[in-house]
Amino acid sequence: MWGNAEKPLGLAVKALVRDERGAVLALRRSRTVHQFPQAWDLPGGTVEPGESFDAALLREIQEETGLQVALTGLAGAMEYEAPAARLAVLVLKARCTGGELRLSPEHDLFAWLPPTRLSSWDFRGQLGRFIADYCQRPA
Amino acid sequence: MWGNAEKPLGLAVKALVRDERGAVLALRRSRTVHQFPQAWDLPGGTVEPGESFDAALLREIQEETGLQVALTGLAGAMEYEAPAARLAVLVLKARCTGGELRLSPEHDLFAWLPPTRLSSWDFRGQLGRFIADYCQRPA
Repeated sequence: MWGNAEKPLGLAVKALVRDERGAVLALRRSRTVHQFPQAWDLPGGTVEPGESFDAALLREIQEETGLQVALTGLAGAMEYEAPAARLAVLVLKARCTGGELRLSPEHDLFAWLPPTRLSSWDFRGQLGRFIADYCQRPA
Repeated sequence: MWGNAEKPLGLAVKALVRDERGAVLALRRSRTVHQFPQAWDLPGGTVEPGESFDAALLREIQEETGLQVALTGLAGAMEYEAPAARLAVLVLKARCTGGELRLSPEHDLFAWLPPTRLSSWDFRGQLGRFIADYCQRPA
């Protein structure tokens, strides 16, 4: 539940990006980022005003990973109360279609997680609960 | 999973609008609407290009019901393959704050469903599965 109705609402997008073997890309946030340094995350970010959610997600994935992806479906949604906004976070499924993985300064480590390791990876907080729930759903 | 990658992606928004006793507003689609005539639905609609998801939802609720609401949280998301687009549907929680209920021509019947009746109401398809899943989650 969003605690503070005075905060603006925003939309964010993340993706479960899979490679050709079904492994999911996880990124570790750099020490220098303002929020959640060293936390494992999925690629994605905030939808800018006037931007569509899919364009925003493709832009963020390109910026953060150098990869091109195709969006293949919806994984779910979660909510998150950020310092300056209440965010609805839409999580999409994506398939890697090209590009070469290179991280931006926002992240310092990556991992391609086989499906069997996804549920035990060290995602935390809202994202940890989302991934745990996602892994329990029937495929 | 979205079957046809050639279709454009779109974003839609719906709301579980509650009254002061916690009842949820359901609307029945008119006989004359193109898609799903006579199906029970939640208020909401498509986010227009350049529009934010929360502005779109408040606009749709106002147009369809005459009610003012406050958005209080996220209920979840579902995906839907429409004839002309693949849609991600974000479902928000909302609290009725004012206005008087009057339906637009898009709907011909409404019901305020007490929490105990929500899971057994005649929602169908994707929305039926979403509501069933929502009602099973811990509050």
